[in-house]
Amino acid sequence: MELKFVKRDVLKEKPTDETKLGFGRIFTDYMLMMKRDGERGWYSAQIEPYGDLQLSPAALVLHYAQEVFEGMKAYKTDDGRVLMFRPWDNIKRLATSAERICMAPFDQEFVLNSLYELIKMEKDWIPTSPGTSLYIRPTYIGVDPFVGVQPAKEYLLYVILSPVGAYYASGLSPVQIYVESKYVRAVKGGTGHHKTGGNYAASLLAGEKAHEKGYDQVLWLDGKENKYVEEVGSMNIFFKIKGELVTPMLAGSILPGITRASIIELAKDMGIPVTERRISMEEIYEASLDGSLEEVFGSGTAAVVSPVGELIWEDKHIIVNGGKMGETTQKLYDTLTGIQYGRIPDKFGWTVEVK
Amino acid sequence: MELKFVKRDVLKEKPTDETKLGFGRIFTDYMLMMKRDGERGWYSAQIEPYGDLQLSPAALVLHYAQEVFEGMKAYKTDDGRVLMFRPWDNIKRLATSAERICMAPFDQEFVLNSLYELIKMEKDWIPTSPGTSLYIRPTYIGVDPFVGVQPAKEYLLYVILSPVGAYYASGLSPVQIYVESKYVRAVKGGTGHHKTGGNYAASLLAGEKAHEKGYDQVLWLDGKENKYVEEVGSMNIFFKIKGELVTPMLAGSILPGITRASIIELAKDMGIPVTERRISMEEIYEASLDGSLEEVFGSGTAAVVSPVGELIWEDKHIIVNGGKMGETTQKLYDTLTGIQYGRIPDKFGWTVEVK
Ligand SMILES: Cc1ncc(COP(=O)(O)O)c(C=O)c1O
Ligand SMILES: Cc1ncc(COP(=O)(O)O)c(C=O)c1O
Repeated sequence: MELKFVKRDVLKEKPTDETKLGFGRIFTDYMLMMKRDGERGWYSAQIEPYGDLQLSPAALVLHYAQEVFEGMKAYKTDDGRVLMFRPWDNIKRLATSAERICMAPFDQEFVLNSLYELIKMEKDWIPTSPGTSLYIRPTYIGVDPFVGVQPAKEYLLYVILSPVGAYYASGLSPVQIYVESKYVRAVKGGTGHHKTGGNYAASLLAGEKAHEKGYDQVLWLDGKENKYVEEVGSMNIFFKIKGELVTPMLAGSILPGITRASIIELAKDMGIPVTERRISMEEIYEASLDGSLEEVFGSGTAAVVSPVGELIWEDKHIIVNGGKMGETTQKLYDTLTGIQYGRIPDKFGWTVEVK
Repeated sequence: MELKFVKRDVLKEKPTDETKLGFGRIFTDYMLMMKRDGERGWYSAQIEPYGDLQLSPAALVLHYAQEVFEGMKAYKTDDGRVLMFRPWDNIKRLATSAERICMAPFDQEFVLNSLYELIKMEKDWIPTSPGTSLYIRPTYIGVDPFVGVQPAKEYLLYVILSPVGAYYASGLSPVQIYVESKYVRAVKGGTGHHKTGGNYAASLLAGEKAHEKGYDQVLWLDGKENKYVEEVGSMNIFFKIKGELVTPMLAGSILPGITRASIIELAKDMGIPVTERRISMEEIYEASLDGSLEEVFGSGTAAVVSPVGELIWEDKHIIVNGGKMGETTQKLYDTLTGIQYGRIPDKFGWTVEVK
């Protein structure tokens, strides 16, 4: 397939104040749009003006949530180069997420290369202040105008771009996390391992209740026994216990985070032992009592690394490292963002320059 | 709020051959459309020409599946009246589904009355051949153009209508159902009790695998122990064991079907004992071995009552009633459809005439 280009008449005004970017509200001039139907397969791919979609009110995605997405970033280095971080892993995860809910396969290499073209076109939209980046949202939806529960034949796969502000505008500050014992996000055999839209709808209520109580995010427990730690709203989670990093293993109900995988590799490379296994809240609580719980942090594309200062579990308040960010957390954050922004050599082969 | 009307210039051609209606592919001339935003609340409601929606590519519903829906029907009686079956229960379920995923509340009475207006306008679209009806699909979606995981402030609530063929075009024939032991649809604490889009995306893969093996539908087991019967793709399930009707109790992970509730009431009224409780597949299997499993059927708006001729569980084939429809199944089907089409007096107060 050939990637076409449709020019827009008037370009938008780019944001001038990079401290006011926020997250996900401003979109660039262009988007990548690919279309598929049952007869022709993938029949159109173009970079076109960012604008509304025309969807039938009967479109499958609006009824049965046949939708998956990804979140990734492009970074501008100090010398003006554009870097991306493991983008092939995001595109691969988009494909496996799609497969889980019976969406048509797509050419991953074509999507990745088209994405590079889009980023190149829109590179002046990448903000340059410390911590800012261009957020990239690949989205894949089933759109048949047919109200029956079955996989779609017609699809849109598109990518939109949004310049985003620094996640930690006023320095990395530890968050308070509410451990959710009533609502469940996912269970083995379900869709928790994949980035399907429905997982996020299911998570909203617990998130709102945590916010009302004054906490930043929710830590999910497993759906079977309500005992084992799973992941945070949009991050995986790590515990440092007696010098070792421990994180829930991938057992089918949590997202296999790309930041998670990078941190595991990075920590091992730094000589920090890492174990992926089942971890109960009881264990965390006891480690906090006997002083062996040293650090806790979340990992994800948005925040990269997010220190956790407190976990609220039932009536227990587990204060982590006196509510302050730990050394290992800081070191992992600095190294990972250093690699992402091209300030530290990337010996892992994670970054790619878009040029 | 006032319900407005926007006329369409040219009406569509109505289908002439009612044997070819199928399900959910043909839509009528008009739809009901209500809009809400964060400042004004619900600010617009109108019956307008059926047509495409304009949605931002960043619309929440396309990323985080903030979407719920309903399925109901309007029936034409032999003397030309239009009946609906417990529509207030569907609208109420739409509201509780919405609440589960943090969608804004709406005025249920206003929606119901507006729906009646729409049906009145479109009554000539209701087919009249035996078993046909007008399928009604209320849909409620969050549409903020904002790529952050949070409840929407802007919403569309709309209702589209589709004339549908007889579910049993060639007589009620028993289906073969595959009991799914690997994939899970929902777990307590999740969204299984509600009609959220994500539940259906999550169900597609198991459905496809069952079809490939030649079976009609999937019977889900509980997500915790993979032992207890939950429900079928879009039906609840009933077992007749030793003269008693048994159906899984509502414990948070299955949809509280309106047909299910009606059948429970109807059966009791007929003098058939009904129990709502946990039922394991082991129990069903044993009942089939000792001959006490008499009938099995699904219940839902689409099929009303759907006899099950065979259950395939792991390597066991459980043949029900020699693969034929049972007496109680037939009686419940006849009575319920009799009430829905106005052929049998409705002593339960379930039907309403739209006039
Ligand atoms: C549920 C969930 N878990 C974990 C993550 C972290 O994944 P990644 O590191 O690939 O961004 C995300 C964010 O994408 C997420 O949405
Ligand atoms: C998952 C599921 N269970 C059960 C049902 C049956 O519900 P009702 O009888 O209200 O149509 C449906 C259909 O709406 C459904 O989608």
